[in-house]
Amino acid sequence: MTMLKEKRITKPLFIHYHAYKKLQELAKHPFDLAKPGNLTPERLNKYVSESCGYKLLYGTERINDEVMIALQSLALESQAMQKMQQMQAGEIVNYIQGHPSENRPALHTATRDFFDSPNPSKAAMEAAKLAKAEIDKLKKFIADIDKENKFNTLIMIGIGGSDLGPKAHYLALQYLHKKGRSARFISNIDPDDVAIALDGVDLKKALVLVISKTGTTLETVTDEAIVRARFKSAGLNDAEHFISVTMPGSPLDDPKKYRKTFYMWDWIGGRYSTTSMVGGVLLSFTCGFDAFWELLKGANAMDKAALKNGIDKNLPLLAALLGIWNRNFLNHHTLAIIPYSQALIRFPAHIQQLDMESHGKRIDQQGNSVDFDTGPIIWGEVGTSSQHSFFQLLHQGTTTVPIEFIAYKENQWPLNDDVHGTTSQQKLLANLFAQSLGLATGQPSDNPNKVFPGNRPSHIVLGKKLTPYSLGALLAFFEHKIAFQGFIWDINSFDQEGVQLGKVLANKIISRFAKPNETPYPLGDTLINQLNSL
Amino acid sequence: MTMLKEKRITKPLFIHYHAYKKLQELAKHPFDLAKPGNLTPERLNKYVSESCGYKLLYGTERINDEVMIALQSLALESQAMQKMQQMQAGEIVNYIQGHPSENRPALHTATRDFFDSPNPSKAAMEAAKLAKAEIDKLKKFIADIDKENKFNTLIMIGIGGSDLGPKAHYLALQYLHKKGRSARFISNIDPDDVAIALDGVDLKKALVLVISKTGTTLETVTDEAIVRARFKSAGLNDAEHFISVTMPGSPLDDPKKYRKTFYMWDWIGGRYSTTSMVGGVLLSFTCGFDAFWELLKGANAMDKAALKNGIDKNLPLLAALLGIWNRNFLNHHTLAIIPYSQALIRFPAHIQQLDMESHGKRIDQQGNSVDFDTGPIIWGEVGTSSQHSFFQLLHQGTTTVPIEFIAYKENQWPLNDDVHGTTSQQKLLANLFAQSLGLATGQPSDNPNKVFPGNRPSHIVLGKKLTPYSLGALLAFFEHKIAFQGFIWDINSFDQEGVQLGKVLANKIISRFAKPNETPYPLGDTLINQLNSL
Repeated sequence: MTMLKEKRITKPLFIHYHAYKKLQELAKHPFDLAKPGNLTPERLNKYVSESCGYKLLYGTERINDEVMIALQSLALESQAMQKMQQMQAGEIVNYIQGHPSENRPALHTATRDFFDSPNPSKAAMEAAKLAKAEIDKLKKFIADIDKENKFNTLIMIGIGGSDLGPKAHYLALQYLHKKGRSARFISNIDPDDVAIALDGVDLKKALVLVISKTGTTLETVTDEAIVRARFKSAGLNDAEHFISVTMPGSPLDDPKKYRKTFYMWDWIGGRYSTTSMVGGVLLSFTCGFDAFWELLKGANAMDKAALKNGIDKNLPLLAALLGIWNRNFLNHHTLAIIPYSQALIRFPAHIQQLDMESHGKRIDQQGNSVDFDTGPIIWGEVGTSSQHSFFQLLHQGTTTVPIEFIAYKENQWPLNDDVHGTTSQQKLLANLFAQSLGLATGQPSDNPNKVFPGNRPSHIVLGKKLTPYSLGALLAFFEHKIAFQGFIWDINSFDQEGVQLGKVLANKIISRFAKPNETPYPLGDTLINQLNSL
Repeated sequence: MTMLKEKRITKPLFIHYHAYKKLQELAKHPFDLAKPGNLTPERLNKYVSESCGYKLLYGTERINDEVMIALQSLALESQAMQKMQQMQAGEIVNYIQGHPSENRPALHTATRDFFDSPNPSKAAMEAAKLAKAEIDKLKKFIADIDKENKFNTLIMIGIGGSDLGPKAHYLALQYLHKKGRSARFISNIDPDDVAIALDGVDLKKALVLVISKTGTTLETVTDEAIVRARFKSAGLNDAEHFISVTMPGSPLDDPKKYRKTFYMWDWIGGRYSTTSMVGGVLLSFTCGFDAFWELLKGANAMDKAALKNGIDKNLPLLAALLGIWNRNFLNHHTLAIIPYSQALIRFPAHIQQLDMESHGKRIDQQGNSVDFDTGPIIWGEVGTSSQHSFFQLLHQGTTTVPIEFIAYKENQWPLNDDVHGTTSQQKLLANLFAQSLGLATGQPSDNPNKVFPGNRPSHIVLGKKLTPYSLGALLAFFEHKIAFQGFIWDINSFDQEGVQLGKVLANKIISRFAKPNETPYPLGDTLINQLNSL
């Protein structure tokens, strides 16, 4: 911790690195993917790295050896590897130097550090011990629930990090759902969200999981009150149906209201909490505890890969550097995450939060305003469906969108018919490869409407099959890709001060709805009047 | 049609309009929303327009009177209103001058022109007559299905425009779903998509709707074959369960294979087809025919509003102009669509296709390469959930994202508890208003991490309640907003040549999977080998 905090630097570091200047120079003439003969089989085979059963194929990025060397120098100069080690060792990485800040570690890696060579630092070991105790509680709880055989539905109440990650993983593992078990999700303050989630649910058979680190989140607390009222009016003892995940001592840590409470701690950020109890209860209830354990194993394997030197073995570092090349040197404002896997339907929404909440920042860790671009806009939907939606713009629009494709050799379910000589999985992969190549090479034509300019960069994260293990590895891949980018930019990837202003103003307007005769808030009142005159 | 096609201009028109130069000048000093005292109640009340029960509140855009006057001049110079009239009259608007192109009308407005003052042009009347005959067929079909009382599930097989619009509308009207009736959706070639959609479905009670204009879409044809095989292996007569929506004479227009076929025509673009039978069958099956009819009525009302002169009454034109200001003059690359309405959970995905497939273009209607930016990247999720996800970046990131908010005064379901003095719907709206104001004004602070720069533009589309009527109006609002932007840029919003290259390359790679010993395709083969060595 001290190493990071000793220095106090008064200008952003990033653009003053030697490698930055070199990369700026190289970016004047980036590799031309569309030039005939440039994209070769040799190139595609050359730019491949591998970690934890995943290959990252990046011959279709606008890079060459010089760029890759300079990017690695950037990682060296910014001490990215040391910072990753410090993060996983539990040093304080969530801070802003010289200003009040959260000032704590970001130890989500400790929520899965139960396998080979656990991190030997005291902080990491203590955190892993706490996390393991919750795991053991969970294993027993699930066994009891299985034995009780009373519940078929888990109603999850949580928002942001307590919703997007768990839901994305739940959908990704639908092929493992136990027969008759499913989940409903309530996150929005919109009352229709509650109504839709409860529609058709037999409350007698429903377990309600309320997740809030502090136990004070407006949406979660309100939605819980509404759902609890439904149990009471159905004549049920709500305390027998409600469980919680929260910090020790929070309002949700109350045995009178919850039949079981699982803990998290302030060193687990909401958006980094999927491998904690936040995701654990849901995944164990629907897929079984063993599936969750496998997920942790896969995430842990990628945690270890993120500590390895060299982009040939460290996929998160490689992806981070490619992202910085596209963002800061080729100046692309967005990044599309396109899984060619229907099971990953909500995975882009999770990565959207993970990345944009981590990197929607404008100051560095020394408190200086940054003079470069930080996090891009992350968006995406699954292929091939999205080919019939927005891919028109990806091919022929005036704005270039770098793409991170994700795909698997095998599908999940026992259904993969051969139609006209190929399976659907082969057709799926053929489409992915075609997009990656077509976006890169483009195509000339005499008809201007059929011209494809090409030179649109992408890479493919390719695995064997989407299982709990490989899903955990994929999650950690993105977590660490993002952490590396924060380290290189010297920004704090672990706080979210930018959501505070909205909360303050919302509370002012809520007060105006509640007490129209008290202190006016002119701007808010004007909008309320516009609403009322509809 | 002739008026548009007579001229043959050899440079893009857009940047040569007088208004363009004026707007460029004005964009040097756009209105400063963050300057203390600039955002006033008077301003919020001044910049409000209204159509079909919707208000558009745009005081939080970076505009002033001068900008709005120049934008309206831009609409005049580009003959946007005349082109809208021509489109709705059935003239050929889908063309590229001097090159082979689809060369046909875009008459989706005819699929709902059954109410007050129908369009009097011959083409529009003929199209509306065809569409009305399908409506009548549908009404009778639904009555028969209701009487037969055999089916509880509709399995929709379709992709892109045959999937996103219908699904978004189906979810938006979930509060009207008939008891025991629901739908499943298959769009992806991914075999897991088929498996997930069929999981738990009782095929005996399932009606399968196959949608493809040409009847040749790879995904749809393949997925249909797979689903049909399941019916056969379950000992069911598949022809009794399958229905289709397609063009007359296509492979899907076959009474031996489908118990009923509904028609569409080449003058309905896939992404503009929700109000045709593409959306009609699904919505009538699940919500009842009357709900679909109300949807058409609402869409038709907005069609008429789009023909009105003046941005005070013509919401689509107003929104189009605000979008062009943000895209071409303030140079923002993306636009977020954020509904504060859980029911609109997949509406952004539909608008993403509608807008990006229409405007991901690089030539104008004369075949010239454009020298300005066309369609932005459209993305978004619902509020308040997204406040806990990516709003950090919207407030404090280095890239500004203009936002189109959508919200309603009332919620849909009979559940809107008062908790601590306000209803959830009030809390929802308070949050929306707070975001809109906070993004605009920002907030200073001594702590650099708590500084909000503000000046981030947005507007709110505000309605009374999300019903079939207002949903139809909302859909048409976006359709015409997009059409107006295409007219002003002089690009063709109705074709999608940019998806062809991917199809050609995918077929080459599919052949390589099927016949590894025939003509090699070196780039594709390299990727297949990378896959096989996993």
